[in-house]
Amino acid sequence: MTDGPTPANIFKIGFGFWASKALLSAVELGVFTELAKGQADLATLSRRLGLHDRSARDFLDALVALKLLDRNDGHYCNTAETDLFLDRGKPSYVGGILEMANSWIYPNWALLTEALKTGRNQNEATESGDAFTALYADPDRLRGFLAAMSGASLFPAQAIAAKFPWQNYKTFVDIGTAQGMVPATLARTHPHLSGAGYDLPEVKPIFEEFITQRGVSDRVKFLAGNFFTDPLPAADVLIMGRILHDWDLVQKCMLLKKAHAALPKGGALIVYETIIDDERRENAFGLLGSLNMLLATPGGFDFTGADCQAWMRETGFSQTRVEPLTDTVSMVVAIK
Amino acid sequence: MTDGPTPANIFKIGFGFWASKALLSAVELGVFTELAKGQADLATLSRRLGLHDRSARDFLDALVALKLLDRNDGHYCNTAETDLFLDRGKPSYVGGILEMANSWIYPNWALLTEALKTGRNQNEATESGDAFTALYADPDRLRGFLAAMSGASLFPAQAIAAKFPWQNYKTFVDIGTAQGMVPATLARTHPHLSGAGYDLPEVKPIFEEFITQRGVSDRVKFLAGNFFTDPLPAADVLIMGRILHDWDLVQKCMLLKKAHAALPKGGALIVYETIIDDERRENAFGLLGSLNMLLATPGGFDFTGADCQAWMRETGFSQTRVEPLTDTVSMVVAIK
Repeated sequence: MTDGPTPANIFKIGFGFWASKALLSAVELGVFTELAKGQADLATLSRRLGLHDRSARDFLDALVALKLLDRNDGHYCNTAETDLFLDRGKPSYVGGILEMANSWIYPNWALLTEALKTGRNQNEATESGDAFTALYADPDRLRGFLAAMSGASLFPAQAIAAKFPWQNYKTFVDIGTAQGMVPATLARTHPHLSGAGYDLPEVKPIFEEFITQRGVSDRVKFLAGNFFTDPLPAADVLIMGRILHDWDLVQKCMLLKKAHAALPKGGALIVYETIIDDERRENAFGLLGSLNMLLATPGGFDFTGADCQAWMRETGFSQTRVEPLTDTVSMVVAIK
Repeated sequence: MTDGPTPANIFKIGFGFWASKALLSAVELGVFTELAKGQADLATLSRRLGLHDRSARDFLDALVALKLLDRNDGHYCNTAETDLFLDRGKPSYVGGILEMANSWIYPNWALLTEALKTGRNQNEATESGDAFTALYADPDRLRGFLAAMSGASLFPAQAIAAKFPWQNYKTFVDIGTAQGMVPATLARTHPHLSGAGYDLPEVKPIFEEFITQRGVSDRVKFLAGNFFTDPLPAADVLIMGRILHDWDLVQKCMLLKKAHAALPKGGALIVYETIIDDERRENAFGLLGSLNMLLATPGGFDFTGADCQAWMRETGFSQTRVEPLTDTVSMVVAIK
């Protein structure tokens, strides 16, 4: 009986949302930001976070069991990882994407079955027709969204800075740059580079604040534009991070064509995304991310490295390659 | 850079709800029940399940990447585990608890932060005062709930049948028996035992159907009662599975006292639950389960083996012990 198959793994996946939501609520409540100031006992921490007596101990001990907090002699403290990545006061904070998951993505996924049956996104865009238009029209939501994108871009940006042969290039533009995590990281890592972040004009003040904080405003500027209605700006290297997956196939190919047109001969396009493995049987995060695009956009989807390289070659790029950046994110590089 | 801490584990937990909800929707849509009839290609399976073209392939391949399906030459099939445990046509089906997670628990957890701040449950009981009263008043929901409980009880029931010294006892009553998974399993494993399932009278037809299907209706009967207003029935062994965690401490101790009163000297009480480890730092599922009780009940909470043994000894039981049943569930045994 005990040697046969058990439903343990099924239950582990099926109830995995408990651990997720506990972490997302912990980020929302500022647990890690509070503990970055120093360890605290149950009563002190509960009071500071506004936790009720009924729930505080189970909540905090669950975070301990999930290895997101530690507890010594009744005092709670951050782990090395949560202190570095989930303290809002540190530039290494990646919690923005989790704040977005908490407020927007988690409830949206409650509608997954409906989306699977209809093929239609289930967020507010169902009514307004375009989630991004609504997002960019609301300054507070826009700021939160752009910060969320930085949380997801920190490690890919560091890997792109390390793995791409930047010594062969002088200028870059990051298309759909958000706060500018990629331009800031490239400029800080490679003093010979100068470049820009390109996004809708509403992004400018948020981008410039971020770039100034990172101390690279002398070499990184903001370029305002709309990649649907304008040509793309020219540079030795163009970067598109998590842009293509937002759009349908016609739009994806249009963006690749505009990038090809803007590059000089020998110039490079870097597309980085949660690239699905070509066999579509390993990168669960990429495949689930594509379902997230189903839920959040009218036509977006994630794709394999083979898909992306085929589109790039059809667009006229001469060489393409796929290179992993993190455990789930890869870059697809195309040379004109 | 690559040797230092990364946020990979934080993102894995934080977005774990994607995999959860994909599985829960797959159970809702009957993916595993359909594939139990035989493998099928994308077009055939999409048509039978009512999946839209935009979403079908990503959804099914995500289930492959999660090792919940397999795919060979473009044909999808169940894994050994999902075929055994998630095909509604098999008695080993445990998906009822996942159906409940999908329709009820997942959306309820969207309100975790509010529950943590207020200490109040966030389901419909907030208005009605008692979730169980509402549940038992609706025959369809009651049937679904009782089947869900069986899904969660199958493996603990088998482990109780194997690990408890039943040769020393002749009769048992399962308190709060639902469909009767524990009585059916005990009676099928041990032909010398006879016993009963005890629950509210609304449960009787559902229990008797289940017990008859399992072929043990000659030795297992139904006893109707309300454990808040009635004394408990007498037997050599009383069992309470996932009953105590629904209630507050006063109610828990009242139920233990009634069990003690109903047992003969030398009789045994078996409490089985997702028992939290005494240090409250390992069994994340138990600690998160306690937050689920926060969200779902006015006063319920999960507890450690030490907690439960202390309450049992205060109630007058002479010997107590904790014994693991599955990777997350343990039994606490008390002898009068």
